[in-house]
Amino acid sequence: MSHAIADTERLARVTLSRALEPGEHSTLADVARLGPVAYRDRVLADRVEGDTAEVLAERVEAVDPALELEQAARRGIRFVAPGDEEWPGSLEELGPLNDVALRGGVPVGLWLRGPMRLDELADSVAIVGTRDATTYGNTVAHDLASGLASAGRVVVSGAAFGIDYAAHRGAVAGGGDTVAVLACGIDRAYPAAHRAMIDHLAETTLVISESPPGHSPTRVRFLARNRLIAALTRGTVVVEAAARSGALSTARWADALSRHVMAVPGPVTSVVSQGPHNLVREGTGTLVTGAEDVLELVGEAGQFLLPELRGPRRPVDGLRRNERAVLEALPSGDPASVRSLSMRAGLGASDTHRALQGLAARGLALAESGGWRVSARARDKEAVSDSPL
Amino acid sequence: MSHAIADTERLARVTLSRALEPGEHSTLADVARLGPVAYRDRVLADRVEGDTAEVLAERVEAVDPALELEQAARRGIRFVAPGDEEWPGSLEELGPLNDVALRGGVPVGLWLRGPMRLDELADSVAIVGTRDATTYGNTVAHDLASGLASAGRVVVSGAAFGIDYAAHRGAVAGGGDTVAVLACGIDRAYPAAHRAMIDHLAETTLVISESPPGHSPTRVRFLARNRLIAALTRGTVVVEAAARSGALSTARWADALSRHVMAVPGPVTSVVSQGPHNLVREGTGTLVTGAEDVLELVGEAGQFLLPELRGPRRPVDGLRRNERAVLEALPSGDPASVRSLSMRAGLGASDTHRALQGLAARGLALAESGGWRVSARARDKEAVSDSPL
Repeated sequence: MSHAIADTERLARVTLSRALEPGEHSTLADVARLGPVAYRDRVLADRVEGDTAEVLAERVEAVDPALELEQAARRGIRFVAPGDEEWPGSLEELGPLNDVALRGGVPVGLWLRGPMRLDELADSVAIVGTRDATTYGNTVAHDLASGLASAGRVVVSGAAFGIDYAAHRGAVAGGGDTVAVLACGIDRAYPAAHRAMIDHLAETTLVISESPPGHSPTRVRFLARNRLIAALTRGTVVVEAAARSGALSTARWADALSRHVMAVPGPVTSVVSQGPHNLVREGTGTLVTGAEDVLELVGEAGQFLLPELRGPRRPVDGLRRNERAVLEALPSGDPASVRSLSMRAGLGASDTHRALQGLAARGLALAESGGWRVSARARDKEAVSDSPL
Repeated sequence: MSHAIADTERLARVTLSRALEPGEHSTLADVARLGPVAYRDRVLADRVEGDTAEVLAERVEAVDPALELEQAARRGIRFVAPGDEEWPGSLEELGPLNDVALRGGVPVGLWLRGPMRLDELADSVAIVGTRDATTYGNTVAHDLASGLASAGRVVVSGAAFGIDYAAHRGAVAGGGDTVAVLACGIDRAYPAAHRAMIDHLAETTLVISESPPGHSPTRVRFLARNRLIAALTRGTVVVEAAARSGALSTARWADALSRHVMAVPGPVTSVVSQGPHNLVREGTGTLVTGAEDVLELVGEAGQFLLPELRGPRRPVDGLRRNERAVLEALPSGDPASVRSLSMRAGLGASDTHRALQGLAARGLALAESGGWRVSARARDKEAVSDSPL
């Protein structure tokens, strides 16, 4: 049932993820055209054009992608790439849009932390806005997110101060799921004050980054991150944003990707309502005043009609068939070897190994010196963690 | 140069103005089709259909239109009708739009007080909204009106509490002209607290009503009044209005008349911003955040480009050639007869009489027992009156 890309391709993509900056549109277009393995080999053979070719070759040589993946898995981080089962088609739409001004291209892969699958964002909605939000903006973002979440929509934002934080918090208050897309490495927290929130999302839902672990946030990475928020969601709501706010770049991306662009009005006397008002005035954004308006726009009889059918999210939700089989085979006491687990689960060694990496990335399996065992979190499947939100 | 309708037609129109309710669309369509004289005669001959035909005939019989006009002129009130020189084409556009829900039809005439001519409203902008305005709404309406007025635009509103009052006041603060369209008789003040403001507008600019002197405001008259505000202006700005506010009926009329409909956003948490937000959401209204936005929309190289060329309005502005001639002939001491004035002005008796009525309506000529003389106001042509605004 499940499918995944070949190991050689995955390793090449991990290498490129570490060697490239996110959203390098011309390079990403080359990767898409040649394939990651051929592109990496071309870099190593000094056959890539451009001022940075030498630096790039040095970077590529320096990466040990298998080690990267192993270290990531131990920290509950997984790498998902085009061709993987949970890779959503929405991200492929970034391919034809290689816009220099906006940053562009399909990511070589994404780094993820959390039990939710990337393709569960199909009906999600982004709520973005300024860090310098007013009390009004924070209240509206919170209530909007709460309404969307309680209607079963996943709320996506960027974990920043202000509107982003209010949106994440509102979604949790609404009893729903919320996901953060970071401009820094997935293991880092930016802003540092939101470490607890980001870790909470990684435990309960999903944290996403195009940058490899360890990377700090930069302007280029923020712009590239904004395209991911736009692409991964069905629509973007801008709550408050000054006339040149970064949140508007997310809106431009959503517009370029034919996603719904929505804008929350506010007092004309408020500087941070200028951005949303401009979006409406220029015809890019649709004025929305609450969750009902958003649901009407992004509508279609999707998942949001079924909130009453959904229980609270559990760590085992969204597991693939092989992962479920391996999880059931994992001992809670002395660790078991991959060979032993492979036999218990009725799977080949490589499928078992891949399932173990997926379980480890979700915090469900622990790698120890003698092999693997189930985590306390997986055993306590119904536990509701304390929320820092 | 000047032209005006025949006396018989004017008298018939005055009669109908007193006998009909404003905005009786089917009746007004009949008046337009048959002409006012024929329609009045048909009413008197009991040849009009409908439940109210008998009542209508009684009402028509009871009117002494010549006396009405004379009494009105003595109080500074004039009656302007289709065919008169200052009757604007904009009002004729109400003819094809006989909408039952909205009230409709071209008025049989309008009652006016003030020195401004009706056709000076060609480039005007209406600012309307709720009586229950917030501090935010009042501030925005005031600033919007001030900006439009200082750009040379006449600001039209309805003299009500809240947004209307803020708009009139803002226009005066901006050094420009503002005009009130009333739902009651032109001699009345509704609300009574705005008596001083309405009188001030009648002295300096213009007050307009479709209802004859003495009439109290009713729901039907408010709805009919709203269509006049929409028709007389180039666009209507709704500043604050609850979801079913009367201000929205003005916006619907403006839309039906292909005028610009503009809406000022506000906090989504504010009940009185729901009306403007709905207008934008449904595509009827364009979001505007200030006077610049409004001017850009209603634009075209009109009068608003010439604010620096305009001085303060004087009582003699907008007079017709005959009126100017008679005004110069009027004595400031002992009154002169019409015959005497006719000779001094070089005009026929009926032209002189008509000019005197116009001057009286503008408060420039006074009728006394021995004839006519100039008013103190006309003598002090540059006087700036104390504003109650």
